[in-house]
Amino acid sequence: MGSLMIIGGAEDRTDNMEVLKKFIELSGGEDQPLVVLTAASTVPEKIWEMYQGAFNALHAHKVRHLPMADRAAAEDEELAHAIATAKGIFITGGDQKRLMTIIGGTRCGNALRQAWRENGACLAGTSAGASGMCTHMMAEGHADLAPEKGAARLAAGLGFVPRVVIDQHFAQRHRINRLLSVVTQSPFLLGAGIDENTALVVHQSDGLEVVGEGCVTVVDCRDARTNIVDIPAGEVPHIFGARLHLLPAGACFRREGELTDFIDYLTKEH
Amino acid sequence: MGSLMIIGGAEDRTDNMEVLKKFIELSGGEDQPLVVLTAASTVPEKIWEMYQGAFNALHAHKVRHLPMADRAAAEDEELAHAIATAKGIFITGGDQKRLMTIIGGTRCGNALRQAWRENGACLAGTSAGASGMCTHMMAEGHADLAPEKGAARLAAGLGFVPRVVIDQHFAQRHRINRLLSVVTQSPFLLGAGIDENTALVVHQSDGLEVVGEGCVTVVDCRDARTNIVDIPAGEVPHIFGARLHLLPAGACFRREGELTDFIDYLTKEH
Repeated sequence: MGSLMIIGGAEDRTDNMEVLKKFIELSGGEDQPLVVLTAASTVPEKIWEMYQGAFNALHAHKVRHLPMADRAAAEDEELAHAIATAKGIFITGGDQKRLMTIIGGTRCGNALRQAWRENGACLAGTSAGASGMCTHMMAEGHADLAPEKGAARLAAGLGFVPRVVIDQHFAQRHRINRLLSVVTQSPFLLGAGIDENTALVVHQSDGLEVVGEGCVTVVDCRDARTNIVDIPAGEVPHIFGARLHLLPAGACFRREGELTDFIDYLTKEH
Repeated sequence: MGSLMIIGGAEDRTDNMEVLKKFIELSGGEDQPLVVLTAASTVPEKIWEMYQGAFNALHAHKVRHLPMADRAAAEDEELAHAIATAKGIFITGGDQKRLMTIIGGTRCGNALRQAWRENGACLAGTSAGASGMCTHMMAEGHADLAPEKGAARLAAGLGFVPRVVIDQHFAQRHRINRLLSVVTQSPFLLGAGIDENTALVVHQSDGLEVVGEGCVTVVDCRDARTNIVDIPAGEVPHIFGARLHLLPAGACFRREGELTDFIDYLTKEH
């Protein structure tokens, strides 16, 4: 199983590019075959140009764009082979619903799993690509002043992060309430909010690393008391005892103490 | 001891005025003597006009403005008497540092305590007036994308809320990080963030009520693990196990379970 890089969007692509450098490093270096999936975006060529410039600047010379405009393209055997044999896979932003509608359950979707699980490829997703890595994907939702019941909707994601729901652009778009709304209703899941230009790296060895310039915020409502089951949609529940962890960039975190469950939830079905 | 109303600013003054109605009710009704303190503001007459209109509309006909431009005014015996004999005291917004510089330790400051503690007056503060009610007052701070060490500064407040630090305009100005910054460094205090047009009412009987349209967010870092002592100012600590409670408007909360300590901290020195 390779590393996962869950990126909160807007990672630097022109300056020090810390997050993208990490992606290349975890993929085995600039000589390894890397692929960029733009299926989440309605302007894939524009997105690819941006990443092409960044990867060129970082001397990664075997990067290939795999455009997929529809499910037919996502069933293409040659594209699926390119994914399965890549050492690094980068899923760009856009709309995670679009990503899943195109790639979910296709040859290319299966090839992602094969590359990551069997061949040890590094699997990275940013923004929509980060949300899409989850089993239970934050599909859409409004970030409001309070965690209204039903503020966000879940959908089926790629399934690489089994019991954590990811939100991105987290601090910048003030999304703590929509994430709280989800995990209050679904305490089976832990919530992880990833700031922009920040990556949560899940290493094979069960350690975490936060790279970039922001934080990862973990929200845990498993022990919280709430009336959310008893109120109508759109109302705000009371919540007692939500737990919050803050993991700033620049540090590594081991699977111990309060992070034991979080790391297990990131990596294991239960 | 009277009730406390800790208001998050921008309470409605023209429409249904739910928060101001509650203030009149807790002060004993529209026939009781009420005073409005504008010392936090640099435009006291303008602020008073606004409240005068609102209290008139609510038929509170014994409302008096007590302007205090400086400490000399705050030492005035007649003003202090008006405060001490009021049944409701409303401290407006502005700048809590200005409020405390003018009134802290003066006859009028002492009269507030006398009215509330000995005569059972309702003591209400909004925005700067809310922050100023604390013993440990949030004096100033920047609300940033992460709870930086030293993001906020404390100062001595009026001392009516012994171990809870209040922040206001909470959801609207995205202040959770500056509040987290304070309680991570000073876990002796619990943090309470009050949304706009929302009041946290502390009843004499040790119950809480949240009135208006937003929420009260309680942040508790007493059991959190953090490296904040070991990092320089301006950096972001890791925090594991911060606890968060959300109290939406429209509900009463008893002193029990997770709220026992919060209510004790609001009302008792330890």
